[in-house]
This record gives sequence, structure tokens and C-alpha cells, in this order.
Amino acid sequence: MRTVYTADHRLRDSKTELYHGALVPPFECPERAEIILARINEVKLGDVLGQKGYGLDPVLRTHDKGLVDFLASCWDEWQAAGYGGEAITSVWPTRTMRGDRIPTEIEGKLGYYALASETSISGGTWEAALASKNVALTATDMVLDGERAAFALCRPPGHHAAIDQFGGYCFLNNAAIAAQYALDKGAQRVAIIDIDFHHGNGTQHIFYQRDDVFYLSIHGDPAEAFPYYLGYSDEPGEGKGEGFNKNYPLPPGSDYSSWSEALDDACARIHNYSPDLLVVSHGVDAYEKDPISFFKIRSEDFIDCGARLSRLNLPTLFVMEGGYAVSEIGVNTVNVLSGFED
Amino acid sequence: MRTVYTADHRLRDSKTELYHGALVPPFECPERAEIILARINEVKLGDVLGQKGYGLDPVLRTHDKGLVDFLASCWDEWQAAGYGGEAITSVWPTRTMRGDRIPTEIEGKLGYYALASETSISGGTWEAALASKNVALTATDMVLDGERAAFALCRPPGHHAAIDQFGGYCFLNNAAIAAQYALDKGAQRVAIIDIDFHHGNGTQHIFYQRDDVFYLSIHGDPAEAFPYYLGYSDEPGEGKGEGFNKNYPLPPGSDYSSWSEALDDACARIHNYSPDLLVVSHGVDAYEKDPISFFKIRSEDFIDCGARLSRLNLPTLFVMEGGYAVSEIGVNTVNVLSGFED
Repeated sequence: MRTVYTADHRLRDSKTELYHGALVPPFECPERAEIILARINEVKLGDVLGQKGYGLDPVLRTHDKGLVDFLASCWDEWQAAGYGGEAITSVWPTRTMRGDRIPTEIEGKLGYYALASETSISGGTWEAALASKNVALTATDMVLDGERAAFALCRPPGHHAAIDQFGGYCFLNNAAIAAQYALDKGAQRVAIIDIDFHHGNGTQHIFYQRDDVFYLSIHGDPAEAFPYYLGYSDEPGEGKGEGFNKNYPLPPGSDYSSWSEALDDACARIHNYSPDLLVVSHGVDAYEKDPISFFKIRSEDFIDCGARLSRLNLPTLFVMEGGYAVSEIGVNTVNVLSGFED
Repeated sequence: MRTVYTADHRLRDSKTELYHGALVPPFECPERAEIILARINEVKLGDVLGQKGYGLDPVLRTHDKGLVDFLASCWDEWQAAGYGGEAITSVWPTRTMRGDRIPTEIEGKLGYYALASETSISGGTWEAALASKNVALTATDMVLDGERAAFALCRPPGHHAAIDQFGGYCFLNNAAIAAQYALDKGAQRVAIIDIDFHHGNGTQHIFYQRDDVFYLSIHGDPAEAFPYYLGYSDEPGEGKGEGFNKNYPLPPGSDYSSWSEALDDACARIHNYSPDLLVVSHGVDAYEKDPISFFKIRSEDFIDCGARLSRLNLPTLFVMEGGYAVSEIGVNTVNVLSGFED
């Protein structure tokens, strides 16, 4: 399997994350991608290619232009306002306020476009997000051109980013942009299986009313884990999209036996859907030693996970999402890919 | 004019405020009330009395029980979870998620009940909020019992707190609780004039569909200032409440000439409404040297403001809200009260 990677991911290098009431160094850090890349080379998974350019058109097929313009100018506006820290909002439009006003002041605007505030915006963030989306699209083209599978080593990740909101370490939804791009290139149906520990609220939001993308996610019960307010089992999709969204929220301490049961159910549904492309939102924070998650998946389980995905026998695009046990992120990530290939 | 004050306000003494992407010592600090109290004694404004007890019943006439239970247990739950900082959320139910789920995990629950995250919850916060509401109710009873006016030296403040959300330094809406209490004691109509620099989104939210409380507020344009998503001029009230909400958002740099014009208009409307009680949400952050506001009101202007309020010739309850130019907060706050009495 070939990998797409760009060193531009390093431009996303913020210094502060709001975590449990304190500002800490971000869990989503540049080392993550470097360690995965090193492991890919170590096990000789396959060639590593650079990104191609795709511009903003494929982004605007998925995201709101207001969000895109905001992300492009946020850091400059924040600095121009003379604010001291990285761009982190302390405000947002709540249920007791109005949702139809976008303030002109930058913190108010930031709160409008944010879906969480652990994720600061700093210099280089937007450039890295653009490169990450290019990585996803370059790998998509490889699969559309006939490769069985490809790995988009995206960073920053994407699955929390909604049509018009960023957060959860995500700015542009790489997997969703890739799925839409495949549809625009002629695919009829795309399935997205999200194996990241966290529910991909953004991906669900983007495709919730559509039947041409089937989103399935296995994740920590949102009553107990980020993103908290989406990802419950009673979210089947809406309108034309009803029946094309499937959540598997699992409780704290879940191990591979219940996790793989959910995976098998998801794979059976994907098989029945018969998509032209499978996108795997590939996170490895289900890992037992992940610092911000609560599943008990072992490193070797990820090999088996890859093997089960492979049996679907579909053109498959892996898009990197989360995983914060940094020293083991290379082994765990590549285990899924190796398991897929064996 | 007599003042109600309790030293219990000091129990609200958090150490961190999320401000422009950094954690800083809170602008809403215990010194504020102490300096106001010192000024009251210095100018011999009148006797200072302690709080009486009122329990939770008058709170539950205004606020959701879920919010009250949450505020009572939040700090214990946060500590039990082993989280490092003071209780500050980084999540909330956004427009791209669901609003009908209250997570069990404490940060998710915190995000559900928060309307902003500058305001941390720490040990003593709930006890101080309860005392602050007692201060407001004690002063309310003094006015209901026949005093022309009384000053509730409330801390923490209240006007941002909505039916089921806290934030903006506020936990329980002291002015709203006082207004509801007066109605429950037989008043037919209460007017609340909010002269704090910030729009009292909570007070507006609580009474937006009612005609027995007329809320009027002069404040920084929310397109440019907290609370950002409420307080615009096109919010007249709803249903039975239509016509009983009036906002005067003013632009950065506004001075007393435009501010007092808004005040005169508000006073004319209050006069026509003919309330049994006037509640003044009394903040002095419209002051020209306030560190987090943008009006240009001078200290002497506050005397004139008090005089204009006095001409309404109504039983009047002053309830302390904001003001963060700490060294001048005593003079400015008491200037309004002295101007009212002269």
C-alpha cells in the first residue's frame, strides 16, 4: 500500500490545548505523523508520495464558505486584535441565545465557527489544514485510478469538522472531502467507516440527510466522551439519509471482543450497501494506553481489524484521524494497514 | 439608602479565567465588593445589613432545577474526576450537534449548562452564589416593606445567567430572582433596567415571553462585545412578551451623550409601563477606564445617571452586576446611588 504524506503538516504546531481547565501542550502534535511515517518506512509498507495541489473547489463542495474564509483569516484577525494567547474561544451561540448572528469581533466570530475550544488556532494552522486535505485527495485519486488501497497520512485530522464548524483538533473534514470528491468523479455510493475512538460528528453532520454516503462509526459512548452531544445510537439519518447513518457507541472499558462485534455488523451493512469506495477514518485512539480515551484495544487487535476490513474487498482509502499514545501510534496505525494487506 | 452585603461573597474566589486564549486571574474578583463596601461607609450612604436566608424556593421560580443541581455538585464531580484545573468546559452542544442530551461525564455536563467558558467553577462558588441571591432578596424585602430604595451588593453578579445556563461570571440571576419574588409577593409589574456595559442575556431570556417583567438594557453592541449572540436591537420580546423587551446596543467609544439619550428613552418607556418595582441591574463597566469594555462614561456621569433614575419616582432595587476597573469601582458604583438620593 502506498502512502501520501507531506511535511507541511508540521505547520500545525500549536502550543496550547484547553484540557480539564488547564492549558497544556496539545495531544494532537507533529510527532504523531513523523512516528507513523517512520514505522511505514521501517516495515516497508510501500512507497511514500507527496501531496498534489487541489485548491479550494473540493473543499467548498463539503464546507461552508464562511467557515473557509474564517479559517483563512482567523489567526491574522486574532493577532490584529492584540490578544495574548493562541486563538481559543470562551463564547459560543448557546440555546439561550441566537444562532443567526455572526459577530464582527474575532472572538465572537471564533465562537460561532467553533464546535469545541480545546483546539486553538495558531500560525500555520490553515496552511497545514489545506495540505492535509491535499494529502487525502491525492490518495483518493490513487484509489480512483485503480489501486486497491492507499493511505492518506493526514494531519491535522478531520472527522470532527462539520459543514460550518471546526474543533476536536479538526479544521477541514478530509474524509468527507475525499468522499465527495469520489462522488464528483463518478462514484455512486461511498461508505465511510470511522474506527477512531471518538465519534466523527462532523462526518455524520455533513452526510446526515444523504443516501450516497453511508457513515458508520464505532466509538466511546458520547454520554461519557467527546464529542458528547452527537454519536448516540438513535441517530439513523434523516430524510433521504434515513438508514444511512449507523452509530456503535460503546461503554468505558470495551475490549476487542465487543469492538470487533460492532465492526462485523458494520462490515455486513457496508457489504449490503455495495459502495464504489470505502473510506476508513483511521484513528488508533481505541488503543488501551491512549491517554484521552477509554477502550481496551491491544496493538495486535489492530492487525485483525485491518484483515476484517480487507475482506470487504473494496477499493479502500485510509484517512488518518486520531491516536494520542504517541510512542505506539506508528505500530498501531501501520498494524491496521499491514493487516489489510496480508 | 441602605445596603445589604455579606462577606460570604469571598467564597467566590476562583483563580483562572479563560481570556483571549490565556488563563488569567479573574476580572470578577473579591476586591470588587470590598472596595464598594468601603466607599459606602466612606460617604455614609446608609446602614449596611447582612443577608437573610431564603432557601432554594425563590431560585427554582426562575431557574431550571437541573442547573441548580448541577451548580451544587459541579465542583465535587470535577474533583472526583481528577481533573487538574478549575472547572472550565471546552465543549458545548453546538448547532451541528444535538441539544437534547445531557452527558453523564462532568465536562460534557458542564458544557451543557455553560453559556461561556471564561467563568470557572471552583470551591465555594455555589455557596457564594446562594449568598448573593440572599443579598438580593433581603434588599427586595426592604423595598417591598416600604423603603424608597435599597442596594443589594451582590457578588457574584447575575444578569448573564439564563433559565438553565450559567456564565459571564454569573451563576444565579439575582435581579431576575428578585423580580420574580416581588411578583410572587403581589407586585403586578416589574421593570428591570440594565445599565451594565454587557447585555443581560440571561435576564432577557428568562422574561422574553412575559409581559409582567419589562427588561430594558443599554450595552455594548453584541456584534462587538460579550455576550455576542444576544442583545441586538431587533429583539422585542415574544408572544405575550412582545413589546416588553428593549435593547439599546451602542457602538465602541460611546460616551454619556448617546448613553444618556438611551437612558432617557428607557425611562420614558418605564414610566409608561408604570411598574410596581424598578430593579436596576447596576454595573459600572460602562466606565471609560474599564479594562474589558469600550464605552466612555466618566465617573461624574454616574451621578447624573442615578439622578435620572430617581426621577422615575419608583420603589427601586439596585442589584450589583459588573464593573472591572477595580480601583474606581467604589466611587462609580456609589455615584449612581448618591445621585439617586440627592
